[in-house]
Amino acid sequence: MTQYLLYYWDVPFRGVFPQLFLEEIGADYQWHDASEIYPDKSLKIHNPGMAPPYLFDVKTEIYLAQMPAILMHLAREYDYLPKRTETLDLALKTILDCNDVLMEVTNYFGQRMWNKKDWNEFRTARLSKWMKIFEQTGLDHGLKSENGYLLGSKISVADIATTALFGTLVHSFPELEVDLLDHAPHVLKLCQRIEERPALREFLRKQREKFGQIYCGGEIEKSLREMMF
Amino acid sequence: MTQYLLYYWDVPFRGVFPQLFLEEIGADYQWHDASEIYPDKSLKIHNPGMAPPYLFDVKTEIYLAQMPAILMHLAREYDYLPKRTETLDLALKTILDCNDVLMEVTNYFGQRMWNKKDWNEFRTARLSKWMKIFEQTGLDHGLKSENGYLLGSKISVADIATTALFGTLVHSFPELEVDLLDHAPHVLKLCQRIEERPALREFLRKQREKFGQIYCGGEIEKSLREMMF
Repeated sequence: MTQYLLYYWDVPFRGVFPQLFLEEIGADYQWHDASEIYPDKSLKIHNPGMAPPYLFDVKTEIYLAQMPAILMHLAREYDYLPKRTETLDLALKTILDCNDVLMEVTNYFGQRMWNKKDWNEFRTARLSKWMKIFEQTGLDHGLKSENGYLLGSKISVADIATTALFGTLVHSFPELEVDLLDHAPHVLKLCQRIEERPALREFLRKQREKFGQIYCGGEIEKSLREMMF
Repeated sequence: MTQYLLYYWDVPFRGVFPQLFLEEIGADYQWHDASEIYPDKSLKIHNPGMAPPYLFDVKTEIYLAQMPAILMHLAREYDYLPKRTETLDLALKTILDCNDVLMEVTNYFGQRMWNKKDWNEFRTARLSKWMKIFEQTGLDHGLKSENGYLLGSKISVADIATTALFGTLVHSFPELEVDLLDHAPHVLKLCQRIEERPALREFLRKQREKFGQIYCGGEIEKSLREMMF
């Protein structure tokens, strides 16, 4: 029986975060196009939300918007939250960091198109700093040991989010893999390990066959691609 | 003994969220200027974070960045989280919505200055929709009853966040109170009630005496003020 409906656009960008989690836990879910809710019905649903993704829980008939809230909900339900206060806080903080990186990589969701000067400055300064933040967070916690995860010895929602962010980014823009290798080698390895998990490997293979290298779509993706040469 | 250090800039904007919460619970905390950490030390602290606010817990010596993560941490510690799954999820979702409104009101943190056309469009369409989202969320839950709170019959972190958002906005830009009254009358009343709580009234009086109507500072505040006439 279908447990969840997930509403998002037909690109990975922010939707791949909950989708990767639903795949990881083997949930029975259906993907729906966001236009079924957004924008016309977004004020009409119970617990209205501004924008996709929306998760609809079939059993409780409850909608939830905001990617970090969706991930934290699923993580609580399926025991993917760290147990200690510090790492529990860091799980949410990591998801919020991911959300900020999505915003910055797309130059505030395409508010302006990238130009070479701004992109190079962002790539050198800000993007590398984000990568270092993830790397140091991992080294302060689980990535100290070879088979550890970002926040400890057990997989958590933070690993799924980190992979949805950097795994997707590096797949869509292979030119950026060297940045991740330089600034966050343990995080790169973590993403590769997570993408190879039995529950995720086949899903990602199919999704990437379907999407190719599509990232966020639209004009801002074109602008991003022009920056890669 | 000092329990927390809170690092932020000398404006309310995003710092007032954790500060209002610390006042609500009567915490013993010290406010520090964000420049003590940002940007030079932001990668050097344990659990590095990109930007202010940072909360430092004196007893555990742990830093935490990201406003929504700080609020959720404090809410958990001081029992300001709703108990039911749905409203617990909505508490985080509400804080994330607040964070998005901060971003949108400042035109993506000042990426571009406002002009009349864009501002009027934002005010009419998007800002009013945000207000309606808060209103409907409240009416779907605690604001159905006269003395209720956003998510139920007990105060939660969502009320503090909602007040930090709209109470501050309407104090800094009184011209926007009519918007809130039109689109979210129950939320306006809630903010007024929260601001009158004994733990908060005197703090807000002093803070507003000190700051006047300062909101976020910088060029984008000037641009916002020009929109009000």
